[in-house]
Amino acid sequence: MIDHITSGFAFDVLRILGIDGRGGAVVTAAMNVVSQRQERKDIVKIQDRELKPSEVDRIALIAPKATINIIRNYEVTSKKVVELPQVIRGIMKCDNPSCISNSREPVEAQFRVDQREPIRLRCYFCGHIMEREDVLKQF
Amino acid sequence: MIDHITSGFAFDVLRILGIDGRGGAVVTAAMNVVSQRQERKDIVKIQDRELKPSEVDRIALIAPKATINIIRNYEVTSKKVVELPQVIRGIMKCDNPSCISNSREPVEAQFRVDQREPIRLRCYFCGHIMEREDVLKQF
Repeated sequence: MIDHITSGFAFDVLRILGIDGRGGAVVTAAMNVVSQRQERKDIVKIQDRELKPSEVDRIALIAPKATINIIRNYEVTSKKVVELPQVIRGIMKCDNPSCISNSREPVEAQFRVDQREPIRLRCYFCGHIMEREDVLKQF
Repeated sequence: MIDHITSGFAFDVLRILGIDGRGGAVVTAAMNVVSQRQERKDIVKIQDRELKPSEVDRIALIAPKATINIIRNYEVTSKKVVELPQVIRGIMKCDNPSCISNSREPVEAQFRVDQREPIRLRCYFCGHIMEREDVLKQF
């Protein structure tokens, strides 16, 4: 179960996980529900599905408060908050076609997190800014 | 609540309704759950939302067994199955660009339902066949 997803972004989380409903996975999504802290949030539950680290990293970019709860026999057996590091590497490309990370040089794209939510990334090489919608286009 | 949606098609129903989660509507979707009849189905619940006839007509094309239940104070106050007529008019265009319904003639596209699920439509004018995925592309 992925809880405390930024409200309105459950579909994006499912897209990151490659779930469109057609694969037969048992999935529940709740959008814009009121949390105990009286804030709006989204929730996604997926049966029998472990998340890969690369998936968790992507989710952290658009829902930095999300928690990943493992439920076995109706009990939460593990709970952890996704981690959004200060520097993002290996997940995304820079949108600036002239950036050295998009050339033939062996330079991997790298970003600094300027703002956590909504995410704003700054390319380490060319300074290009990427907002949440730019990030989502790559997922 | 829209129940008995063809399993795997909850997202398409939400798309037909223009719901992507960002609008703030409280929405729950369950995919590939086992129904009382031991079949897989999808369910969508939307708070405070009436469906337009044109939306119901579109849903019927991809989920002809869907039922639309109105719930007030936790009780089902109305329940009806969507209706898939034998002839479809005014919902979709024919995919064949040479079809007279795509010309400047004042001829409205019209289809016969050849098969209900998955839907298969036959253009009344040019005989062109449209399958479910073709239909979904227009929604």
